[in-house]
Amino acid sequence: MSIEILPVEVDLEITPDSDLAGLVLDAAPPLRDDDIVAVTHKAVSKHEGRVVELGSVTPSPDAIEIASDHSDPRLVEVILAESRRILRQRGPLLVVETHHGIVCANAGVDRSNAPRPDTVVLLPHDPDESALRLRSALEDRSGARIGVIVADTMGRAWREGIVGTAIGVSGLAPLHQLVGQVDPNGYELTSTVIAVADELAAAADLAFGKLERVPFVLIRGYRAGGDGTARELIREPARDLFR
Amino acid sequence: MSIEILPVEVDLEITPDSDLAGLVLDAAPPLRDDDIVAVTHKAVSKHEGRVVELGSVTPSPDAIEIASDHSDPRLVEVILAESRRILRQRGPLLVVETHHGIVCANAGVDRSNAPRPDTVVLLPHDPDESALRLRSALEDRSGARIGVIVADTMGRAWREGIVGTAIGVSGLAPLHQLVGQVDPNGYELTSTVIAVADELAAAADLAFGKLERVPFVLIRGYRAGGDGTARELIREPARDLFR
Repeated sequence: MSIEILPVEVDLEITPDSDLAGLVLDAAPPLRDDDIVAVTHKAVSKHEGRVVELGSVTPSPDAIEIASDHSDPRLVEVILAESRRILRQRGPLLVVETHHGIVCANAGVDRSNAPRPDTVVLLPHDPDESALRLRSALEDRSGARIGVIVADTMGRAWREGIVGTAIGVSGLAPLHQLVGQVDPNGYELTSTVIAVADELAAAADLAFGKLERVPFVLIRGYRAGGDGTARELIREPARDLFR
Repeated sequence: MSIEILPVEVDLEITPDSDLAGLVLDAAPPLRDDDIVAVTHKAVSKHEGRVVELGSVTPSPDAIEIASDHSDPRLVEVILAESRRILRQRGPLLVVETHHGIVCANAGVDRSNAPRPDTVVLLPHDPDESALRLRSALEDRSGARIGVIVADTMGRAWREGIVGTAIGVSGLAPLHQLVGQVDPNGYELTSTVIAVADELAAAADLAFGKLERVPFVLIRGYRAGGDGTARELIREPARDLFR
């Protein structure tokens, strides 16, 4: 009945030529039905070539103005290209809505763990699609029926620190609806919807480790069930009281 | 190297007379150094008598106005008494800042899993103090050096669903600072602060189960280290771009 969170260590730089499913299958214990494989978005993005050399970027006048003296205008240019809307700015921090609809700092564009100095890593183009691809490859080669989560770490309103968050999901329902179920006292839980994919990404983040080469985490013993995508985790702007 | 998340089942209603530490020690495997015990805020609140009979509440004119026809004015009265500020309202939902400084829906006042019909459960008066008390009792009786997290499930800006969140912490550092550390490419991670206590609460929530009697979860294999309180997880209003 316990849940296990197993880091899957890979002592290799991920490139477009890497075989992600092969790396998991080589380093993890044999997959079983209901296993969940969490992968850092950074591994996925590097595999998909979502890396930009800052030297190749010409900042627009907008980017130069927004960067002011806080930030590298080339980096701001890359962030703007990944965003459909800026929600807030303070110093070098831009809180944006990405083209996927994800609200996050700097559109997820990140210098850390980039493949080379002066490059930045973007979010995957379609993280749900990335999750589906990895899941299909893992299921084909293992025979197990699994779930995949593409995870990033994100800041929150109101609270300090970043937490593991699901930006891509395949093979499990990201939201667990308790609607209509009854608690032990007979009180009907009318509106409890748990973002289990985000909780799984947070749990995985405890094992990723920022400085070691742990691009995958295997979560075993949690039956998520269902199916869906990480889009379901994004609140419609019109329903959002804080946008 | 793996992290284990073990539900600790207690088939008893928690009351002010319950011996919380005893319940954990009876139902969990023997505690070891670095174990983390997560407890639902509801178990703590019931133990501390933080339960209100709605029949005993006389709503103020403010509460009646805010409740309008969306909500029970007695419930709104209780929420207002727990709050220092209302940030947003939509229908029966009030997003408030509690007296602890926590931003959450309805000040954490909740009808589900209440001890009796027509009662509501409040947040603990001082959840860090509650965590410290439980930790001291568990350490005294087990001899192990552990951490304790008091967890609630909370909504977020921008994202659907609620996630496990740490509202009380003792015996571990809630924020893990990677400031000044260097990634495998020599890039210095200048501003990565991970809210590990919230990630641990999210991981625990996967095992709590809303409908079964799992008020405690044992997390084993994660070395949180350090010390601190859940207050550190609350962003100062002046530093918050979304308040």
